[in-house]
Amino acid sequence: MHIGMIGLGRMGANMARRLLRAGHHCVVYNRNPAKAQALVDEGAIAINDLAEFRARLEPPRHVWLMVPAAAVGGVIEDLIPHLEPGDALIDGGNSHYRDDLVHAERLRPLGLHLVDCGTSGGVWGLERGYCLMIGGEPEVVERLDPIFAALAPGMGTIPRTAGRSGPPSRAEQGYLHCGPTGAGHFVKMVHNGIEYALMGAYAEGFNLLRHAGIGREDRAQDAETAPLAHPEHYRYDIPIAEVAEVWRRGSVIASWLLDLTANALHEDPSLSAFGGRVADSGEGRWTALAAIETGTPAPLLTTALYERFSSRGEGDFAHQLLSALRYQFGGHQESAKD
Amino acid sequence: MHIGMIGLGRMGANMARRLLRAGHHCVVYNRNPAKAQALVDEGAIAINDLAEFRARLEPPRHVWLMVPAAAVGGVIEDLIPHLEPGDALIDGGNSHYRDDLVHAERLRPLGLHLVDCGTSGGVWGLERGYCLMIGGEPEVVERLDPIFAALAPGMGTIPRTAGRSGPPSRAEQGYLHCGPTGAGHFVKMVHNGIEYALMGAYAEGFNLLRHAGIGREDRAQDAETAPLAHPEHYRYDIPIAEVAEVWRRGSVIASWLLDLTANALHEDPSLSAFGGRVADSGEGRWTALAAIETGTPAPLLTTALYERFSSRGEGDFAHQLLSALRYQFGGHQESAKD
Amino acid sequence: MHIGMIGLGRMGANMARRLLRAGHHCVVYNRNPAKAQALVDEGAIAINDLAEFRARLEPPRHVWLMVPAAAVGGVIEDLIPHLEPGDALIDGGNSHYRDDLVHAERLRPLGLHLVDCGTSGGVWGLERGYCLMIGGEPEVVERLDPIFAALAPGMGTIPRTAGRSGPPSRAEQGYLHCGPTGAGHFVKMVHNGIEYALMGAYAEGFNLLRHAGIGREDRAQDAETAPLAHPEHYRYDIPIAEVAEVWRRGSVIASWLLDLTANALHEDPSLSAFGGRVADSGEGRWTALAAIETGTPAPLLTTALYERFSSRGEGDFAHQLLSALRYQFGGHQESAKD
Amino acid sequence: MHIGMIGLGRMGANMARRLLRAGHHCVVYNRNPAKAQALVDEGAIAINDLAEFRARLEPPRHVWLMVPAAAVGGVIEDLIPHLEPGDALIDGGNSHYRDDLVHAERLRPLGLHLVDCGTSGGVWGLERGYCLMIGGEPEVVERLDPIFAALAPGMGTIPRTAGRSGPPSRAEQGYLHCGPTGAGHFVKMVHNGIEYALMGAYAEGFNLLRHAGIGREDRAQDAETAPLAHPEHYRYDIPIAEVAEVWRRGSVIASWLLDLTANALHEDPSLSAFGGRVADSGEGRWTALAAIETGTPAPLLTTALYERFSSRGEGDFAHQLLSALRYQFGGHQESAKD
Repeated sequence: MHIGMIGLGRMGANMARRLLRAGHHCVVYNRNPAKAQALVDEGAIAINDLAEFRARLEPPRHVWLMVPAAAVGGVIEDLIPHLEPGDALIDGGNSHYRDDLVHAERLRPLGLHLVDCGTSGGVWGLERGYCLMIGGEPEVVERLDPIFAALAPGMGTIPRTAGRSGPPSRAEQGYLHCGPTGAGHFVKMVHNGIEYALMGAYAEGFNLLRHAGIGREDRAQDAETAPLAHPEHYRYDIPIAEVAEVWRRGSVIASWLLDLTANALHEDPSLSAFGGRVADSGEGRWTALAAIETGTPAPLLTTALYERFSSRGEGDFAHQLLSALRYQFGGHQESAKD
Repeated sequence: MHIGMIGLGRMGANMARRLLRAGHHCVVYNRNPAKAQALVDEGAIAINDLAEFRARLEPPRHVWLMVPAAAVGGVIEDLIPHLEPGDALIDGGNSHYRDDLVHAERLRPLGLHLVDCGTSGGVWGLERGYCLMIGGEPEVVERLDPIFAALAPGMGTIPRTAGRSGPPSRAEQGYLHCGPTGAGHFVKMVHNGIEYALMGAYAEGFNLLRHAGIGREDRAQDAETAPLAHPEHYRYDIPIAEVAEVWRRGSVIASWLLDLTANALHEDPSLSAFGGRVADSGEGRWTALAAIETGTPAPLLTTALYERFSSRGEGDFAHQLLSALRYQFGGHQESAKD
Repeated sequence: MHIGMIGLGRMGANMARRLLRAGHHCVVYNRNPAKAQALVDEGAIAINDLAEFRARLEPPRHVWLMVPAAAVGGVIEDLIPHLEPGDALIDGGNSHYRDDLVHAERLRPLGLHLVDCGTSGGVWGLERGYCLMIGGEPEVVERLDPIFAALAPGMGTIPRTAGRSGPPSRAEQGYLHCGPTGAGHFVKMVHNGIEYALMGAYAEGFNLLRHAGIGREDRAQDAETAPLAHPEHYRYDIPIAEVAEVWRRGSVIASWLLDLTANALHEDPSLSAFGGRVADSGEGRWTALAAIETGTPAPLLTTALYERFSSRGEGDFAHQLLSALRYQFGGHQESAKD
Repeated sequence: MHIGMIGLGRMGANMARRLLRAGHHCVVYNRNPAKAQALVDEGAIAINDLAEFRARLEPPRHVWLMVPAAAVGGVIEDLIPHLEPGDALIDGGNSHYRDDLVHAERLRPLGLHLVDCGTSGGVWGLERGYCLMIGGEPEVVERLDPIFAALAPGMGTIPRTAGRSGPPSRAEQGYLHCGPTGAGHFVKMVHNGIEYALMGAYAEGFNLLRHAGIGREDRAQDAETAPLAHPEHYRYDIPIAEVAEVWRRGSVIASWLLDLTANALHEDPSLSAFGGRVADSGEGRWTALAAIETGTPAPLLTTALYERFSSRGEGDFAHQLLSALRYQFGGHQESAKD
């Protein structure tokens, strides 16, 4: 099937590769044309001008956008002059689902379609396939089925869910039409919200294992904290990289994120290459915003997000105020970090 | 290898089965002897009296306890008269690691050994194998290696962690000697603490997906909440069972708990069989206690635990006080649930 | 000074009264004219038609809106035809500060001004005075000073803050110009966000005091929870109404909310009149939204909000999913509430 | 009334002063005798040897301990030889209520009594009086009434709680017999747990006010975070010291902690003297432990505690693991802090 691809960063380039390997006809474009050129050897047709999509793709045309969320609106405007009624855009990036609603509204009077597609898989997707969460009009989503099927992982070796039989559903192959415009990015948003909390859960747990030895005689007392009532309870030196490994097999908490944790801790259990300032992209925030607006309790998802803010020092003033209050009522001195 | 097994509940009986299938010589005991008898056909030797372990097991003897945490101390006392120096007990249940320290102290002067073994796997362990987290004296743990190897899942089809090569470590086979007495149950405790938060993260996320339609015109306004500023943002009807399914393949949040979520939601997306009062066993609490005592921030693990308390109505009085205060300062009436 | 007042609910009527008592000329309007009429005996001029404001108020006119947030836009439209350049509206209700920006934008080309004023004080404000957080153009805020001064509590008997001397600032008298349009409602929004967490803190603490006796011999064991390791630590029967009272004097946590807690608990320590479903108005949500958008960690403010959502059953599906997972991996049965 | 006082730190010395001013006969002891000597001018009798209490106090003797929690047990042992049946010790420090149970058990066979007294008031207590939460045998607490009454603030100018009339109860005078041994420190423990969350609530709120300007044009974009969707919503420069001041009068969130916040922010709104590493004493931890053990949801109290741990860097490894995972699945680089 013919497909255009705009945006050949880490994600976009690998997705094009996966489509090419599946035999699809890929016309690729990147602002920096070298990235498009790099895919020519693998079978892609590289273009230097968005206008070329018109001639290079069979109508109705399908152009997949894999660009930063903030750039989507601009790219859509740039593309519009080169499209015809019936053509469709697929926004496969990390857009806010509310922007999908705006973009679809912009395209509808022109006879153009928007499909929103939340894409999970990261740098591993080329090999593992991408999990796709799709929103849009049913007939447009339907005609893109070969593309989605090629990008998705397929059933693989993953056992079927209890009670499922017969021909595998699309969800079982790793892609799902979640509903009308925005539904795909909505589901992807919640996916990332969950991801933050899963990551945070492992992070807290491994951090606690790191603290299992604070009662050892060789540890100095810390003036800032109450003394341990029972130091004999905290005299372990847990081999955390091995713990990550053992939990991968047979435990209730086995997961792909745990696999990655095992990778990271095996390489360096001290994680000293990482400074501890953790960025957050939009989805974690949007998930929390949606929880609040819909009145859905989501303390874990939101606290995991706040933890990232704190890691970047955004809570420092709050901490200073706590120290100031302790000084005010108790005369406790807590001056500058040394 | 010879092994005794006390406690043939869901976990214990299946562990005995797995050991028998691996060719071990299992002498089994249960307070209710019918459960022991049931394993005879599968090759076990059933005994009705703890004293029989002495004759039926080769010294040094190894007796595995798979009994409720509260019963472990009593069973140990009952066993002591029937053991000889060099024999060892393995506590494979969900004991608090601090009790391991007490039990080991009780056994040491008698020349008896305690091995603590946190066991994960639940009702699936017979088939999948059990993830084992072990604490105790190295030489005793060493001599039990064939037992642990038989219970553990082995490497299976799970890909090796990046950078690991050569003969697989024990962790790669699903069991790990985590350190001295108590270290096994300590690691298992943290494992369960993480489990609570992972479960809570999925639960919050799927609950949010269930709220994605609150802006639909057919929904009545709720007098207790602020009106939605943008109802058009919440008009989805997300097929949550299919979402659980699609996330199983290729997504960053794939996990065994997600597999089980997919099972449950495929069976009944409304989960109407469940009342929403969620029990908690000891480990989630002990994890939070350890976080507090060691000064380790663990807001996700602890909030997940509190969420279970709340599900059982333990926060109701707090909520009533909030309503009382709203009445006091604003005259808002929030009377009994109707 | 001349002032118009629209909206004579609990807040608006009392504010008019306080202004009348201070000698201001108040022209009052309410959709239901009986409420306006009720203030005539106290010196107000009641009008039945918004058009009358024009004749009854000296220009530049000032009309205070004390109507539900959702109604403000409509009332502004209704008023516009009856106002002249230079006139100003004061939105004293619980509007979102973002709506202030929209409303000010609507009024500006007409030569009309918007002042936003967050108002705290509830049913006690008539007597205690209202804490006013004001946003808008400096010269308009300035000319309203007599009105703000009359509504605010003044310095009262509250000791001055350390280091303050000379003539009291407006903040010391209970009103503050916080910045340009929206700043008043922004500060009020955060005020309410803090309020939720303060209320939640007391609620959790008193609830914990209520649980101080769970180890008493007369308490049945609860099958859903781990047994208490040390029941002898939880054998108190704390007189919580008296505790609220004693904390009012000399303690670090004395506050007006605690005073109200003491009121409520003295009346009925069981709070049985309240059902425990706690409403939330907009500000708590907006505060959390602002925290997320600005990247400011606010776990307490947000968790307090989520606690209210949970009190209304909005977390029930999440709890059901936890039970479903416990059944899936452990065979635990947690069926419908009985 | 005769009273002994051991421990003349900030709290103990001021309490002795308050008792002396009320006309009580105070015999004071401090390990460093200079501190005892300093009180002689104010009417105290300084002793250099614990043995002197016997002669200097009328039986039954009452000796108030105001020493660090960790020192209480030792001081009790030192005192025992110098006491006679019927004498009583008052532990007025920050002891864990569980230690009260141990200490009372130690003293009972000797005919000695323990009274536990949680004391709030900090450096302001000399002037304001101390809020006292008392546990112990009724008759011993009763005979100490003149001492408690002198230390407590009395009714002062604080209005009576609605519905209270007649002679003021002891709670209304600022001291309360909360129950048997340990009940006083239990209530004080929860008091401090609440205090942590109240402080945290204000800290988060003021921190959010500090972030109200992040959309101003002069702010650089932060590469670690999603761009602001609506920078025009965050262009305020809120005068936070004035906000603290205005909230002190007439607002729902007025409190003594807010008064102290106003003090601190008036002195320096940047709080630059404080480094942001916040200590925690035992009570906040014990409150969280009690919440967990009793199955009482306390997410605010506990999260406030964890926030302090985080402020001291105890969450850093968790953050590093988050970065490591982001690198693993997405190739995101988050290296050492610069």
